[in-house]
Amino acid sequence: MKAQNSGLRVGILGGGQLARMLAQKGQQMGLSMHVLSSASTDPAAQVTSLWKKGQPDSEKDLSDFLRSVDVATFESEFLNAETIAKCAKATGISVLPEPSLIGRLQDRLTQKQALDQFKIKTSPWVAIESAADAQRALAKWSGKIVLKKRRFGYDGYGTFILQKSNLDVLLSELFSKPGPGFIAEKFIPFRRELAIMAVRNGRGQIIFLPLVESFQKDSRCLWVKGPVQHRGLTALKKNISKFLSQLHYQGAIAFELFDTGSALLVNEIAPRVHNSAHYSLDALSEDQFTLHLKAIINAPLATPTARQAGFAMYNLLGESSQTPRWTLPPGIQLHWYGKAENRPGRKMGHLNALATSPAQALARLKKARKEFEL
Amino acid sequence: MKAQNSGLRVGILGGGQLARMLAQKGQQMGLSMHVLSSASTDPAAQVTSLWKKGQPDSEKDLSDFLRSVDVATFESEFLNAETIAKCAKATGISVLPEPSLIGRLQDRLTQKQALDQFKIKTSPWVAIESAADAQRALAKWSGKIVLKKRRFGYDGYGTFILQKSNLDVLLSELFSKPGPGFIAEKFIPFRRELAIMAVRNGRGQIIFLPLVESFQKDSRCLWVKGPVQHRGLTALKKNISKFLSQLHYQGAIAFELFDTGSALLVNEIAPRVHNSAHYSLDALSEDQFTLHLKAIINAPLATPTARQAGFAMYNLLGESSQTPRWTLPPGIQLHWYGKAENRPGRKMGHLNALATSPAQALARLKKARKEFEL
Repeated sequence: MKAQNSGLRVGILGGGQLARMLAQKGQQMGLSMHVLSSASTDPAAQVTSLWKKGQPDSEKDLSDFLRSVDVATFESEFLNAETIAKCAKATGISVLPEPSLIGRLQDRLTQKQALDQFKIKTSPWVAIESAADAQRALAKWSGKIVLKKRRFGYDGYGTFILQKSNLDVLLSELFSKPGPGFIAEKFIPFRRELAIMAVRNGRGQIIFLPLVESFQKDSRCLWVKGPVQHRGLTALKKNISKFLSQLHYQGAIAFELFDTGSALLVNEIAPRVHNSAHYSLDALSEDQFTLHLKAIINAPLATPTARQAGFAMYNLLGESSQTPRWTLPPGIQLHWYGKAENRPGRKMGHLNALATSPAQALARLKKARKEFEL
Repeated sequence: MKAQNSGLRVGILGGGQLARMLAQKGQQMGLSMHVLSSASTDPAAQVTSLWKKGQPDSEKDLSDFLRSVDVATFESEFLNAETIAKCAKATGISVLPEPSLIGRLQDRLTQKQALDQFKIKTSPWVAIESAADAQRALAKWSGKIVLKKRRFGYDGYGTFILQKSNLDVLLSELFSKPGPGFIAEKFIPFRRELAIMAVRNGRGQIIFLPLVESFQKDSRCLWVKGPVQHRGLTALKKNISKFLSQLHYQGAIAFELFDTGSALLVNEIAPRVHNSAHYSLDALSEDQFTLHLKAIINAPLATPTARQAGFAMYNLLGESSQTPRWTLPPGIQLHWYGKAENRPGRKMGHLNALATSPAQALARLKKARKEFEL
């Protein structure tokens, strides 16, 4: 059956770097890539003639946009899932992954419940509504816990390590006004952080990209290298597959993991394409953006093959507000996001490299990074 | 020295598939990609917000466009080289490769003279101004010659195989009205057609992509596979390097070759990115579009590495005026050009694949091609 054709119109809610890379890969595979974002200088707005000015959280803008496409997706899970569900229903256009699932996964409490339900290992947790709840959790888990806001936390924002030394200050600050609440997790002394990307299409095909190590600096991902082996991987994949099948999940989904040595614990889920899989643009026969788009248009999926034995990705994080400058070394792949303004900590682009081992690929990138003034 | 930055503006004259792939690769490496073409539905116009409506051969359109960029390039060598040279001089903006070189290479007579000058092997040839000249060449070269229009021939257009059986009809037709003239070449009974891409930057660095086999059907490239070995390659590379250095050539340049078994003869030169190197988008650590752009902005170059032992490219040529349809098999890379209309023989896109040998990669693509209704 010849299904997809070059006229299929895909909408992206949001105009950042994830939307930019989705748009470029969609164009390559013959899709018409429409972008809804607030500014014409947004990274994704620069790479398509089908950009529309608007707010993805505005009912009017979103409904108008959905009427111009055949299917839509998003680059951030921090959208208003109820608004999206309402507009999708009103226009009859699917937004994938399903807004109801996003609503469930964007709340850390219901996310944890879903992980427990499918026996996907995660750190022990409890719901926290008050300072007293936090103190009980602290007593239970050896005097050190991680408090996480239930909603809208990212890159370390909304996450707090709580122990006796900062107890009073932090608790009075966090619980001084009403909010969406928190969860507390037992503090896990992990060896390293890992990540894995899964993709499921509507036909029920599920594939996994390689397990990778993800290194954070100041709560932001600095680099990724892989592939990584772990004896807990087979069981994890099996449980994730059940989880995705039961939820009828459609699209890419990233799992950030703690490697405790003996176990793999899921730390966080991101129901979208993710920074930890940017290496796939150069290291695999198919990248996460292409695979996510194939999943949402229901094209067949197969596990991509690795181009070389080792790969790495290095984030180009802003360090100033100057215009960035560089001399790009040959053989290193630069993916620049075209952001209008540089600023400290901002993800401005990333570098990819392949080599005969993950460590060698990372060493090449650490050297290449020195050629950038950011 | 940190040289390039994300603000560098590169202009492309023309809006077809070569311009589209240049634009996407330029955006990836942080360049602002401007496109000058006649229609907003052109392949390259769809992938940038910096499209400008205009004719690259119009002095006014071209000068206005050049004033909006830092450096420019083109996707077709059949532009008016004099107009480009004039506008480049008037605006002070470089168009690369240099228009004067393009003028020299777009005329098959001066192209042949240049090849002879640099001892780059090519088929024996003579200038042809009249039917009598053609008959003399025919008598000299065993009754079979190839007549080529000096200018604006491509994909077999403007090329005629002349022998006794079609002599009178063809000669009276070709010389019935005045034109730019022809050259005649001795007919070469080649084993197969090959191609190689060279890239030179303004620092004088020259790199070569792998030698590949290029298969033509009805005078159009149908597929490419590689890499190919040939004992004549080392000498050819040496002479091409001299040629490019002496001309101060800057950018990518494709050499289409005849493999006679014992020798490599240059059949044609295309001073630009070229269909025969589209495989590089997936098969090499750096593709021809990235390398061409690096050459014209004077970034350092190094020979790209092959991702796997064998690779192939298959052109998706239109067969109707219907909207194309397909189900893309996993693991095959589709590069679709987004042309507004399908028509027989039109290059609508191409497929790339890697495998453990060139033949296996090609076999995968022949199978994948069946999934397309064009």
